[in-house]
Amino acid sequence: MSKPIERLVIEAMPKRYRANLFNSLAGYKSANLLGTINDQGQTNLALMTSVFHIGAHPPLIGLLIRPHSVPRHSLENLLQTGVYTLNVVTAGMHQQAHQSSARYDRDVSEFAAVGFEEEYSDGVGAPYVKQSPIKTGLALIETQTLKMNDTVLVIGEVIELIINDTLIADDGQLDLNAADAVAVSGLDEYHTASSLGRLPYAKAD
Amino acid sequence: MSKPIERLVIEAMPKRYRANLFNSLAGYKSANLLGTINDQGQTNLALMTSVFHIGAHPPLIGLLIRPHSVPRHSLENLLQTGVYTLNVVTAGMHQQAHQSSARYDRDVSEFAAVGFEEEYSDGVGAPYVKQSPIKTGLALIETQTLKMNDTVLVIGEVIELIINDTLIADDGQLDLNAADAVAVSGLDEYHTASSLGRLPYAKAD
Repeated sequence: MSKPIERLVIEAMPKRYRANLFNSLAGYKSANLLGTINDQGQTNLALMTSVFHIGAHPPLIGLLIRPHSVPRHSLENLLQTGVYTLNVVTAGMHQQAHQSSARYDRDVSEFAAVGFEEEYSDGVGAPYVKQSPIKTGLALIETQTLKMNDTVLVIGEVIELIINDTLIADDGQLDLNAADAVAVSGLDEYHTASSLGRLPYAKAD
Repeated sequence: MSKPIERLVIEAMPKRYRANLFNSLAGYKSANLLGTINDQGQTNLALMTSVFHIGAHPPLIGLLIRPHSVPRHSLENLLQTGVYTLNVVTAGMHQQAHQSSARYDRDVSEFAAVGFEEEYSDGVGAPYVKQSPIKTGLALIETQTLKMNDTVLVIGEVIELIINDTLIADDGQLDLNAADAVAVSGLDEYHTASSLGRLPYAKAD
């Protein structure tokens, strides 16, 4: 029923099969839209499923951009301006968000192409997605290229938050269920979630 | 309803509030148990919520270990042996998995302490969690310390998979709903998910 799949078998898997399998292997992923703008005012939007918490103090978030993936325009923009936004994708947004992963030309803004509205604040010179209930503005701290596959790790510091008030609990926890945030598995499957509850801080005795 | 929260306000947030907020900010996270063993045969288990796909060819997975966090024993073990396992956490496992994040002494195996069974294969010299339906065996490729907060990025190559056959679709996609895999928000909230379906590959026209 579940005998080990060994290295040689893994290496022989067809390309698309591998991609589906390895993209769903570690479990549910978050879905965020990366909002950027270049020096000429051209905006860009890219769907990111490799966004992760690095630390709370200072508040740092990491994201991975694949070498030949669509978000290259986004990477160029955030390197130019030093700022970008992450916008949590909801169930109501997920079809448009998925469409933003298509290979649009450089001079096409995915905001307009898929029907999201740009929102700007005084604090961050990059476009937010107005429709998202949880928006994070970031300043680029550094990028590192992972030598084994040329993936770029982008690390940013959170400099602004725009969050629907009703989603923040008294202790800072965000209600992702109420936000209708989606989780992703593989390359193309979206999910809503329902809470099993919170657990107390674990102690050894 | 959602006016911007600025940097000075973020910096003034109480420690626990910040931790809850920033850990739930990017959306749902995956939950995996990291299985390791040291040269003396002492096993260790740690709950990881910063595991992410890096690439499918070669199949690479990244994980982040915080400088003063519990998984330090796990980090020492995987540096010693060069191998480790990741085991997807299900709803039925989540309370024990959460308990494994307690600060047990170095000579205590979290497998025994929280009641998971060790499983071994010929291919990987590190313990899997028998109860998990999706198990990945990895060989350490490299570690990098992120200088801004001393977090360690661990990158490994997948060298073995042990997956319940019924969870793998013909095209390689894993059925995480059927696996009853959990997603995590913040530090302590667990969720099950239900699929909104898969979307076709996005094209620009």
